[in-house]
Amino acid sequence: MFKPETYILRRKALKDEIRTGLAIFPGNTEASFNYPANTYHYRQDSTFSYFFGINQPDLAGIIDFETGAEILFGNDVDMDDIIWMGPQPSIADRGAQAGIKHTAPLADFARYIEEARTAGRKVHFLPPYRGETKIQLSEILGIMPKEIKESASVDLIRAVVKLRAVKSAEEITEIEKMVDVAYLMHTTAMKMAHPGIIEQEIAGTIEGIALANAGPVSFPVILSINGQTLHNHYHGNVLAEGRMMVVDAGCESEETLYSSDITRTVPVGGKFSSRQREIYEIVLNANLKAIEAIKPGIPYREIHLLAARVITDGLKAAGLMKGDTDEAVAAGAHALFFPHGLGHMLGMDVHDLEGVGENFVGYDDEITRSKQFGTAFLRLGRRLQPGFVLTVEPGIYFIPALIDQWKTEGKFTQFINYDKVEAYKDFGGIRIEDDVLVTDNGYRVLGKPIPKTVEEIENLMRR
Amino acid sequence: MFKPETYILRRKALKDEIRTGLAIFPGNTEASFNYPANTYHYRQDSTFSYFFGINQPDLAGIIDFETGAEILFGNDVDMDDIIWMGPQPSIADRGAQAGIKHTAPLADFARYIEEARTAGRKVHFLPPYRGETKIQLSEILGIMPKEIKESASVDLIRAVVKLRAVKSAEEITEIEKMVDVAYLMHTTAMKMAHPGIIEQEIAGTIEGIALANAGPVSFPVILSINGQTLHNHYHGNVLAEGRMMVVDAGCESEETLYSSDITRTVPVGGKFSSRQREIYEIVLNANLKAIEAIKPGIPYREIHLLAARVITDGLKAAGLMKGDTDEAVAAGAHALFFPHGLGHMLGMDVHDLEGVGENFVGYDDEITRSKQFGTAFLRLGRRLQPGFVLTVEPGIYFIPALIDQWKTEGKFTQFINYDKVEAYKDFGGIRIEDDVLVTDNGYRVLGKPIPKTVEEIENLMRR
Repeated sequence: MFKPETYILRRKALKDEIRTGLAIFPGNTEASFNYPANTYHYRQDSTFSYFFGINQPDLAGIIDFETGAEILFGNDVDMDDIIWMGPQPSIADRGAQAGIKHTAPLADFARYIEEARTAGRKVHFLPPYRGETKIQLSEILGIMPKEIKESASVDLIRAVVKLRAVKSAEEITEIEKMVDVAYLMHTTAMKMAHPGIIEQEIAGTIEGIALANAGPVSFPVILSINGQTLHNHYHGNVLAEGRMMVVDAGCESEETLYSSDITRTVPVGGKFSSRQREIYEIVLNANLKAIEAIKPGIPYREIHLLAARVITDGLKAAGLMKGDTDEAVAAGAHALFFPHGLGHMLGMDVHDLEGVGENFVGYDDEITRSKQFGTAFLRLGRRLQPGFVLTVEPGIYFIPALIDQWKTEGKFTQFINYDKVEAYKDFGGIRIEDDVLVTDNGYRVLGKPIPKTVEEIENLMRR
Repeated sequence: MFKPETYILRRKALKDEIRTGLAIFPGNTEASFNYPANTYHYRQDSTFSYFFGINQPDLAGIIDFETGAEILFGNDVDMDDIIWMGPQPSIADRGAQAGIKHTAPLADFARYIEEARTAGRKVHFLPPYRGETKIQLSEILGIMPKEIKESASVDLIRAVVKLRAVKSAEEITEIEKMVDVAYLMHTTAMKMAHPGIIEQEIAGTIEGIALANAGPVSFPVILSINGQTLHNHYHGNVLAEGRMMVVDAGCESEETLYSSDITRTVPVGGKFSSRQREIYEIVLNANLKAIEAIKPGIPYREIHLLAARVITDGLKAAGLMKGDTDEAVAAGAHALFFPHGLGHMLGMDVHDLEGVGENFVGYDDEITRSKQFGTAFLRLGRRLQPGFVLTVEPGIYFIPALIDQWKTEGKFTQFINYDKVEAYKDFGGIRIEDDVLVTDNGYRVLGKPIPKTVEEIENLMRR
């Protein structure tokens, strides 16, 4: 946890945004794995943690915009709890850690809301994402579980996005610590990436590094010699010479929940073939050019399209694309190879704030989401502000099913050399991702640099 | 997965138990971590996996006892799914892997149930443990989420317990493989247990070993120098000379879900003090005597009470208890030091089948649960049968808050030497746990033996 002042200031900032009603923040309960008492690693709700700091189950918070009240709800432990879970701070002590003076038993949470609703006051809440929270809110608010999401408060969503999107110095420090643990994860994966090893051995080992040094992985580890599958969670392949291994992995702080999200792609065995190197240098160039373009005021969609142009230029030089670069990108032809967005906000959630609705986070009245295949997947399109932390993650993939489909449809034959592409169906994919802070006049790549150039990677992997 | 025949025979065995209505098995969906699309490691429902074998989200199964129909419900993937998740087998292919000929889209699951209900047929289901499943069943069955559990089918619970409690040779092989991975986890933890290391470094490393070699941990790793807290998930202490480290950890198979659950306790630094050794030998003796007593027909509660007597005898010899052993155990005085049960069933769930209700699994008409503090926590009390796999996990703990409470209340002063006990409040706790199969005429301890005697542990930890 940060100092109490951090949470006091955050709650004050929220009160400056909303003047009527009250906001309710149900903390996360334990999440059952295979029966009620056997649970996953506990994960607090990010927004609850942002305002109240405490990463324990069965808590709830209220910020009352009219009375100014700030209340933490939770129960003190009894002897059985002490025997099984050890002595715990009282709810009053927990409140004090977050600068909260007013605490109450958890049962009072529903009662407070009931009174407010009876008085006709507005009850603001964020869209829930876990079944348990949906059921809890359903019972408290008298709304069917499937109708809760649409009843969430747009005012509260906008206010929380405004606050959480801009990171303070202490938040940036936390993210950098997590990138430093990702350094350990990725360099370990590189050193293990030799022919004959099963993907799972590497994936499990680096998840262990996250758990040993920081906290849980910030999202399920993506690790595969089939990098052409963007979110590949199958780890049963044996690493073979001639393939490349994509590792997209990060971790989060057990204490503060801030996360990292890094991707590296390396040749199995440690030596790039000339074909691998040619494509790799294109992706690296897109990553570097995109990072260099980051500054306040520029729409991130422009940087996404810049990366798409760098990729198109590179693929033209390699003979895989042809025609006018700007026209190809405007038409979306690059999306055969780069079918996803350049990046997303990063913070307490790896796709920061995605739970409140991606368009509230990444778009606004000025810049709305594209409907074009590829760019439509861009999670962040709006103008950048100092304090935003975001990912830059261009990629080139050869997805056999997609190539076959476009080729059969005769799609973009003026921009794509399908005959040449055909020979790359065994290639896989490459993605390179860094975590970047928007500074007052430019950017800063966060954390200890992780080997990224061909030379750096080959040097690290050389035994 | 096992061969299709395994699942065909299991479904047939269920049909032999129930003659009317139909049983519905909603598979687990993904479980959200911090927003809808960011999920925990996927975990299929154990009973779904038992009858249908497929560890993928968004599936459901029906076994119709009247028509004999066996149906697997799920959707085939589209191009977007292929880009993000890779090519996947069709639902028909998945069905074939489990010997199911009849497959249908997921939306038909609700429709089939609706038709059966309209026809007045009995719909059997097990109590759900995840919010998502509660909401799904609530919508399909028209029952409020909080009322679903009590509407579960006792006939189905009893039938599933009967089938799953007795393990086949192929199930035992899976459990043994998981004990062998637990061997790696525990011996690694022992080798790391030197003064100055933080608990989290060890806990994370051994969770990584599980993930790299088997699958997820079968329950959150318990690892602490404060072993007196039975389920301690706080891993922030620094290991210090003079303390003991309790590690209670196991893993489960990614493929078949069978699990292991092992506890070892070692002295930080690798050398038992004479005080530690004295208590350790009592717990070890209880573990060994309990294991030797295992055979078909004996109620496990008798073995629990045998362990309690061995512990009481040992504590009397150490001067911590006094009086008649049988009287002390009958009164429950041993529970100050051994406040939990001797063990539980082990299988696809680490507390096997606990989700359907502990008393259906561990007790029956003949042997009902004790209400006495300590023995009341025993999860398995009934007579053992060949094919049961269970844990044997006696322990001795010095829990300051409990000691203070009993002492203040003057509880069992005829059996407990509180003055002597007072000096052990800084001791911590010791637990030793193995996984044991009930054979036709006795028992077999499963898996590669993990160092357990004082000599074995000191030898392994010696650098």
